[in-house]
Amino acid sequence: MKAFEIQAWGSVENLKLTSRPAPTPGPGQILLRIRAASINFRDHLMLLGSYNPKQRLPLIPLGDGAGEVTEVGAGVTRFKPGDRVAGLFNQRWMGGPPTRERLRTTLGGPLDGMLAEYAVLPEEGAVFIPEHLSFEEAAALPIAGVTAWRALVSYGSLKAGDIVLVQGTGGVSVFALQFAKAHGARVIVTSSSDEKLERARALGADHTINYRTKPDWERLAWDYSGGTGVDNVIEVGGAGTFEKSLKCVRSGGQVSVIGVLSGVATNLNVLPVLMTSIRVQGITVGSRDDFEAMNRAISQGRLRPVLDKTYSFEEAREAYKCLASGQHFGKIAIRVN
Amino acid sequence: MKAFEIQAWGSVENLKLTSRPAPTPGPGQILLRIRAASINFRDHLMLLGSYNPKQRLPLIPLGDGAGEVTEVGAGVTRFKPGDRVAGLFNQRWMGGPPTRERLRTTLGGPLDGMLAEYAVLPEEGAVFIPEHLSFEEAAALPIAGVTAWRALVSYGSLKAGDIVLVQGTGGVSVFALQFAKAHGARVIVTSSSDEKLERARALGADHTINYRTKPDWERLAWDYSGGTGVDNVIEVGGAGTFEKSLKCVRSGGQVSVIGVLSGVATNLNVLPVLMTSIRVQGITVGSRDDFEAMNRAISQGRLRPVLDKTYSFEEAREAYKCLASGQHFGKIAIRVN
Amino acid sequence: MKAFEIQAWGSVENLKLTSRPAPTPGPGQILLRIRAASINFRDHLMLLGSYNPKQRLPLIPLGDGAGEVTEVGAGVTRFKPGDRVAGLFNQRWMGGPPTRERLRTTLGGPLDGMLAEYAVLPEEGAVFIPEHLSFEEAAALPIAGVTAWRALVSYGSLKAGDIVLVQGTGGVSVFALQFAKAHGARVIVTSSSDEKLERARALGADHTINYRTKPDWERLAWDYSGGTGVDNVIEVGGAGTFEKSLKCVRSGGQVSVIGVLSGVATNLNVLPVLMTSIRVQGITVGSRDDFEAMNRAISQGRLRPVLDKTYSFEEAREAYKCLASGQHFGKIAIRVN
Amino acid sequence: MKAFEIQAWGSVENLKLTSRPAPTPGPGQILLRIRAASINFRDHLMLLGSYNPKQRLPLIPLGDGAGEVTEVGAGVTRFKPGDRVAGLFNQRWMGGPPTRERLRTTLGGPLDGMLAEYAVLPEEGAVFIPEHLSFEEAAALPIAGVTAWRALVSYGSLKAGDIVLVQGTGGVSVFALQFAKAHGARVIVTSSSDEKLERARALGADHTINYRTKPDWERLAWDYSGGTGVDNVIEVGGAGTFEKSLKCVRSGGQVSVIGVLSGVATNLNVLPVLMTSIRVQGITVGSRDDFEAMNRAISQGRLRPVLDKTYSFEEAREAYKCLASGQHFGKIAIRVN
Repeated sequence: MKAFEIQAWGSVENLKLTSRPAPTPGPGQILLRIRAASINFRDHLMLLGSYNPKQRLPLIPLGDGAGEVTEVGAGVTRFKPGDRVAGLFNQRWMGGPPTRERLRTTLGGPLDGMLAEYAVLPEEGAVFIPEHLSFEEAAALPIAGVTAWRALVSYGSLKAGDIVLVQGTGGVSVFALQFAKAHGARVIVTSSSDEKLERARALGADHTINYRTKPDWERLAWDYSGGTGVDNVIEVGGAGTFEKSLKCVRSGGQVSVIGVLSGVATNLNVLPVLMTSIRVQGITVGSRDDFEAMNRAISQGRLRPVLDKTYSFEEAREAYKCLASGQHFGKIAIRVN
Repeated sequence: MKAFEIQAWGSVENLKLTSRPAPTPGPGQILLRIRAASINFRDHLMLLGSYNPKQRLPLIPLGDGAGEVTEVGAGVTRFKPGDRVAGLFNQRWMGGPPTRERLRTTLGGPLDGMLAEYAVLPEEGAVFIPEHLSFEEAAALPIAGVTAWRALVSYGSLKAGDIVLVQGTGGVSVFALQFAKAHGARVIVTSSSDEKLERARALGADHTINYRTKPDWERLAWDYSGGTGVDNVIEVGGAGTFEKSLKCVRSGGQVSVIGVLSGVATNLNVLPVLMTSIRVQGITVGSRDDFEAMNRAISQGRLRPVLDKTYSFEEAREAYKCLASGQHFGKIAIRVN
Repeated sequence: MKAFEIQAWGSVENLKLTSRPAPTPGPGQILLRIRAASINFRDHLMLLGSYNPKQRLPLIPLGDGAGEVTEVGAGVTRFKPGDRVAGLFNQRWMGGPPTRERLRTTLGGPLDGMLAEYAVLPEEGAVFIPEHLSFEEAAALPIAGVTAWRALVSYGSLKAGDIVLVQGTGGVSVFALQFAKAHGARVIVTSSSDEKLERARALGADHTINYRTKPDWERLAWDYSGGTGVDNVIEVGGAGTFEKSLKCVRSGGQVSVIGVLSGVATNLNVLPVLMTSIRVQGITVGSRDDFEAMNRAISQGRLRPVLDKTYSFEEAREAYKCLASGQHFGKIAIRVN
Repeated sequence: MKAFEIQAWGSVENLKLTSRPAPTPGPGQILLRIRAASINFRDHLMLLGSYNPKQRLPLIPLGDGAGEVTEVGAGVTRFKPGDRVAGLFNQRWMGGPPTRERLRTTLGGPLDGMLAEYAVLPEEGAVFIPEHLSFEEAAALPIAGVTAWRALVSYGSLKAGDIVLVQGTGGVSVFALQFAKAHGARVIVTSSSDEKLERARALGADHTINYRTKPDWERLAWDYSGGTGVDNVIEVGGAGTFEKSLKCVRSGGQVSVIGVLSGVATNLNVLPVLMTSIRVQGITVGSRDDFEAMNRAISQGRLRPVLDKTYSFEEAREAYKCLASGQHFGKIAIRVN
């Protein structure tokens, strides 16, 4: 089968199209013909070698993918050939709280990922995808979709009337906007681009803030919340956002720390956390239970992941460049076969 | 002021229009000019004397009411004259789990209720009502609205994609339908009237079942759930419904026991509760936190309580008769002044 | 290997000692040399054919067992030869809420169980056992221990100062007593035997009630609770207990329905559930997360499962008879090899 | 009555013993003869003027106090003269999550506090104290006790076998140690004093670390946890502790931010929060529900608050100095009358 490999850390030049023997499913495993993959910021860091330097190479990259089951191993009961499925990013996280083991067995590193024609997964490591979605749309779900769901629903107990602030319009953020609206919440979106804010409005955003022209966006958010503060901030990071998030969240509210972007916060003042009983919750994608619950919501609401651009398999390097540019709105897909 | 009193247990004939001295608010209290009240099944049982025979008479009935603050006592900070508010049914339940004390200090018995021109409440015992609602609509909220909210959201962790089964089309049931749809859930409604089922569809019900023509409605509900079972059943009672509810709920799902109607279940087989880890949760209205959260959802979604019929103050006895008939869809309001 | 099989439904006479080929572990599987097993009421019903008549025979019975890993299949990372482990009763329930699939893949039916010299399990289906326990003690944990833990901790949010009522002194009940005491709770135990109540006191029970001499035990329990009611009742069933449990639990409290013994409740009055916001929670053992959390508590508190009697492998039928007699206190173990 | 007042911000010299008219309880209020008070770090900051500069003066300081009800106003049902009670620090927080309003109506500023012979409180703002405690011991509970309880139990879902790390041996920390042990947890305590660590061991600490001689205490804590990390860190602050706390907590674990001491964290690296799904939870004392649940645990376990030193009313300034020195172990009490 054809597959891309990271053969050395560095730039997209190190991403090589190679040929590998087609895998076969052992007992309890399924063979997946991958139809589409999707790229996330984590994949970009992985390629650079800055995500996990201990990772062994070569590695088939990408944690996100969807396809068709073409063969099942002995004893498989969850799936049969022809089923449309996506892989779990956290291959061993079925439900319950995160553990070290559950957070470490992930596709696209340390396990081989989805930028290949085929993959073998344990049957426990895949879920059915919503019927109304294309494979490209479904491939957007495993990382960005599940992350947004876990931040809002599993940890955030999202309910109608809640006020959610979504930073930016990347993959997780656009899913968060869609899920929050599907639950009857009020949503505030920030971005540096009026054009992207316009698109966010079309997806249901109640309030939008251009943080370039309104650098004190946390005050505006406070006002938009009706003077009580935001229930849940989807914090995707960047310099200086974290302190502003702490300022616009309500007493007892949650700041969901999502982004690998969120790096070192300089001279962070933790006092507001204490004084107003804020919760800062780190989010690392989620479990199969999260994924399946999200899929039920997507099916019921006929939601569609927002794809910015779709590349062909051969153009995979272009997809990396597109992601690195930060110009996209929503997700970037790669059609595999 | 004019007020209705239950002067002896029995029929609506014992409901007497009388005159009482106008109350004045003490420290920490507000005076409420009641603009509208609403009637619930509990009020009907109370009048019959079958709800709480130890209740002292005379009693101003009705747990549901909304109006305008006309005067505030010393030290009041939550409200000022002119504010539009509703009273809490559970006057001392601010938040957290139910306790005996919180469940016992309720309007319309043992405390005097809302079928009067004025009422004095502690400022802690009232909440602002959503701006877009009339007083008649707001008066529908304290018991039926909060009950549905607590069953679905506070106890049920309602989320998009959940499957909710609502029995009937009374006050709590119609609110449950509306709240479930506002959260992106799929809703199944049962009734003995095709016309009421039609109205439920207009409010967003995904599936409707006439339990008279389809007495094995629990099987249909199972099918409508996609073969996995219902997440939350709003069980308002009546002979034989409880066992069917246990049969159509999913493993780990919830049956929310709402109705005072739910009486003695003959030869109830508890085995399914055990074998499939079902939760049966009794619901007794809810707290001020529940009420305020519900109001935020109602405001955000511009939801409107469904009023079947509105009576004048003088027609209060007719309202009782209407409720007892069980012919209504949604809530019955009484315009006070 | 030697193994017992249920070859036909009926009495212990249908339990036959046979010989089967020794199993070998496939990829992701471990081979377990079973050192001890334990018997539960479910196993008794299974043998009678009244638990699941669709079960295919022959079946190696018993859901409870512990032993040593003697061999591991390809790709196994959780265990190595020599590790001391117990199997999960729910082989596919890793964490999160119960689902139909998780509740159905259980040892001792439909899957072959532990009354044999060896068993092969997926590595996900086993846990390390506490170091200070013998294999006989560890074999007591998977069903009765995890059930008590889930009822009290996972569903009951047990905390110091809570009041727990434990019915009887069977396997689940004695574990519940031990776990409740380990958390600083106050525990009330009921039994028909003063001698068993004495043993319960020795294990820390704060109050004991002989329900034969005090048939209105629910009133005594109410008094022992200080007049506010019991937080969590471990309801193992029997005629008439369920209604009494509903009467002695506090507003907002929980009745944990455990026992397969709990059968049909005649003329059950559900009204208290509603009026005092009680939760009735069915318990069906639990997940690997439950098991591992319980093991940490057992290790930290140096708790020891209470074994009533230990039988040799050849005496397995006697163990069944002992259980059926209901005379035991705690658990019944079978030494395998 | 005699009372101390803060008449100007600054040092203990600004704390003046004065005379005020004895208060009388209005409707719904109780008159409390204060028998003992206790001092917290917040009170120290308040006196300096650095806690809330908008606070109006003069102010009777101290959030912690206990005493006897000597008189009740009209309509009071929860208490009667002679009852032994403590005031809630958060006078309006009955239950449920924190809100701005609940966090702001606190004793010892903005409301007058407990360093006086009498206080009037709404009946909702007090709780019974455990019978086996002296007033000095009971006065230690409202702030430090409830804070530790909320961090561990309400937010932390503490259970037997959990691993808790407690920083230091101040008021909150010693309560946290006691509550964690009462729930069967394993506890690690850090301090710069071997003598204090010795006392912590006497209270049940399983592991102790002198962070002066072992500055890499987070690694030791990791080892003591068995290599999986700590479940809940009681983070009371000080330079550099926060980052270490993030390093020793398990995936999915909690860092409870307690201390007003926790100030600005320089160059805080938030990445571990994200990568291992950590929760950072700010704690601001707690609700009446928390207080009452804690009292049940204290009564059941016959726990006693640890008092370092008890001062007379006239020595109140010495109590402030003692607290500021940081040399104490546990709580500092003031006998009032």
